[in-house]
Amino acid sequence: MRHTISVLVENKFGVLARIAGLFSGRGFNIESLTVGETEDPNVSRMTIVAGGDDTVIEQVNKQLNKLIDVIKVIDMTGEKFIERQLALIKVSVTTSTRGEIMQLVDVFKAKIVDLGQKTFTVEVTGGEDKIDALIDLLKVFGIKEMVRTGAVVLARDWQKEEAKKAK
Amino acid sequence: MRHTISVLVENKFGVLARIAGLFSGRGFNIESLTVGETEDPNVSRMTIVAGGDDTVIEQVNKQLNKLIDVIKVIDMTGEKFIERQLALIKVSVTTSTRGEIMQLVDVFKAKIVDLGQKTFTVEVTGGEDKIDALIDLLKVFGIKEMVRTGAVVLARDWQKEEAKKAK
Repeated sequence: MRHTISVLVENKFGVLARIAGLFSGRGFNIESLTVGETEDPNVSRMTIVAGGDDTVIEQVNKQLNKLIDVIKVIDMTGEKFIERQLALIKVSVTTSTRGEIMQLVDVFKAKIVDLGQKTFTVEVTGGEDKIDALIDLLKVFGIKEMVRTGAVVLARDWQKEEAKKAK
Repeated sequence: MRHTISVLVENKFGVLARIAGLFSGRGFNIESLTVGETEDPNVSRMTIVAGGDDTVIEQVNKQLNKLIDVIKVIDMTGEKFIERQLALIKVSVTTSTRGEIMQLVDVFKAKIVDLGQKTFTVEVTGGEDKIDALIDLLKVFGIKEMVRTGAVVLARDWQKEEAKKAK
């Protein structure tokens, strides 16, 4: 099963390498990973999406909790959470496809953030499915280049108490 | 100096751990890191923002290029590129601050993506400065929780030739 794990870590040196090593040592491929700042400059939040056997993921979570720079591990799997990703997609454009692409961008509430002579660069945010859907639709026109953040997640608000403990 | 490095890697097992290890082994702290899929399912793109001495970063780049699963390293520093990040910010709300926060969200073209009895969860995308600015403004009301992707970058289109070679 696919797991979405949110890890609060001390913003220190080498923490990322240790955590990545923990997953790869167990034979897990990390599907996406994002590390960024939080409201506390000393704390970073990692969001890891990894697939694999539930019992093994459970072991990885336990091991994560043991790492000295790990403050809290929250396995969001099965919980209600808000998930968002961002993608930048550079797509080929011709005079005849221009209108159609702009309509797609509009429907997906995406934005054109750069224009070339033969390309648009589109910024889109949303859940994974929405971004996958737009990519599929743009593939027809030819995707030149693409970059995609991993997922970031926050617990929905009725889970606030749990989230507070996480800090 | 701060470096923004875009690395195309084979979507394989353990690559992330090796790359993270390379940076931490050299004493670099990674400020933000994002790994996600590209237009090619076998290839992931990592975007790393790291600060440090220019000559040492250059050495790290060279070492990255030598790793077997690394397809291409592009140091975007000093180049024209589009940079975007996404943040989810859960902010405290009272009946008296509600209007003001909604105005801020509007000015920043952000979105309210979840409502609690005492909180809003705001989604915002943009360059680092824009996101920093909104966070600073929301801090006054009390930020309960926050998650932020690292930066993702794509070369501006007049660098298309270089970017093509990168694939």
